[in-house]
Amino acid sequence: MTIEELKIGDTASVTKTIGESDVYLFAGITGDLNPAHTNEVAASKTPFKGRIAHGILTAGLISTVLGMYLPGPGTIYLGQELKFTKPVHIGDTITATATVSEIMLEKNKIKLKTVCTNSDGDIVITGEATVMPPKV
Amino acid sequence: MTIEELKIGDTASVTKTIGESDVYLFAGITGDLNPAHTNEVAASKTPFKGRIAHGILTAGLISTVLGMYLPGPGTIYLGQELKFTKPVHIGDTITATATVSEIMLEKNKIKLKTVCTNSDGDIVITGEATVMPPKV
Amino acid sequence: MTIEELKIGDTASVTKTIGESDVYLFAGITGDLNPAHTNEVAASKTPFKGRIAHGILTAGLISTVLGMYLPGPGTIYLGQELKFTKPVHIGDTITATATVSEIMLEKNKIKLKTVCTNSDGDIVITGEATVMPPKV
Amino acid sequence: MTIEELKIGDTASVTKTIGESDVYLFAGITGDLNPAHTNEVAASKTPFKGRIAHGILTAGLISTVLGMYLPGPGTIYLGQELKFTKPVHIGDTITATATVSEIMLEKNKIKLKTVCTNSDGDIVITGEATVMPPKV
Repeated sequence: MTIEELKIGDTASVTKTIGESDVYLFAGITGDLNPAHTNEVAASKTPFKGRIAHGILTAGLISTVLGMYLPGPGTIYLGQELKFTKPVHIGDTITATATVSEIMLEKNKIKLKTVCTNSDGDIVITGEATVMPPKV
Repeated sequence: MTIEELKIGDTASVTKTIGESDVYLFAGITGDLNPAHTNEVAASKTPFKGRIAHGILTAGLISTVLGMYLPGPGTIYLGQELKFTKPVHIGDTITATATVSEIMLEKNKIKLKTVCTNSDGDIVITGEATVMPPKV
Repeated sequence: MTIEELKIGDTASVTKTIGESDVYLFAGITGDLNPAHTNEVAASKTPFKGRIAHGILTAGLISTVLGMYLPGPGTIYLGQELKFTKPVHIGDTITATATVSEIMLEKNKIKLKTVCTNSDGDIVITGEATVMPPKV
Repeated sequence: MTIEELKIGDTASVTKTIGESDVYLFAGITGDLNPAHTNEVAASKTPFKGRIAHGILTAGLISTVLGMYLPGPGTIYLGQELKFTKPVHIGDTITATATVSEIMLEKNKIKLKTVCTNSDGDIVITGEATVMPPKV
């Protein structure tokens, strides 16, 4: 969708159960194999009581909403603010939602509120994305 | 490292050549298979002239610096601001660097300046992380 | 989309450049590591002059069209006929297209013509899918 | 095996427990992350009562039998008919079996009956493959 087609409040979301393989592949891609993500024995002794997903992995679902659905293919990602508010455990089902909050027509830029929640409705990430929608 | 062991200016970095498999696995984990990342024919016709890595994938290298080295294992990631300033192409060698910029001793929180550069020295991501260093 | 919302000729497609990692992961998942897919030295001496993707991997893009777009989430896949008409090399950009060809309203079943083409327009797979669209 | 070495009734099979990582990697390769495969919360409310494997992923085990064992390396895959008769859940152990059913000597083609069963003996896929055995 181009900036002319978008309006404040437009929203889209994706949902995925975060599998162990997601966490392990993300660990492998980035090299962040820290014990919180890849050592169940150590992680079970932390306040999180088990291995958790990387915050940036969960944030990747926001990228999916922006790149695939709103505004969708052709979007240029300019910035993202993220607050990690709760841990995401392996097996949690996460919904990432983006909602258009500001339209800067002359700059061809928009801002979107970006929120990730688990299946209990707890917010695990809040933040804001800035993108350029596709021109055509 | 605990907050008492850290001081302003402490810095650490990791470097990785971003492979096609990194981009494809990240696309698969997140579901963001948009053409900019997975369709070379379409991507070669964009201003980026070929497939680029997901911005959030590159940001994952920052997570690695924080979780593995500075402060290292036991760190709790609270927030991350990201500006995507240049595209990262498949095959680019990216260095993510984090540098302690603020220490809030009583809250056990620190801020770090986070920068990703390519091998030409171009900044591809700038931003700031907020973390809680491990207590022990 | 439910069967009432579909009509003959409705069409959807997805496009992906088949990466080496796609072929290698598929080989790993299935155990089909035969030399045509994973041994460049041997494969370069065949009529195909290099490693090719598994036919069933390419067919997976048809599953994506059906499950994600047409009819989309909630679809039950009943059957698929496939003819592998040309090899797909690593690096080829493949478009899978499904087009509704028959609607059996009382059985809640539809048939779709399914075709995969490369970026030269060559047909690499032809066939037909049978699915039950979602009820709601 | 060449066509001269094959006879009607020759059979081979492979068995694999389908892991969550198999389903997630296949979803990632193809882009088919539909909820039936990657959203446990949504999938648990369907008649299948949980996430299921992609039908085409299970069919990949047939490709393994053909390409690795019968006829084996050098085989050219010409076609495959598939009927998906039961769902395959994450954790199911699937055996894919191919049995030579027709030999067309002058065309160097054979047909094989292809069946996938779970560990209860339920047939999850039936169908027929057409291949050219290796010349040498």
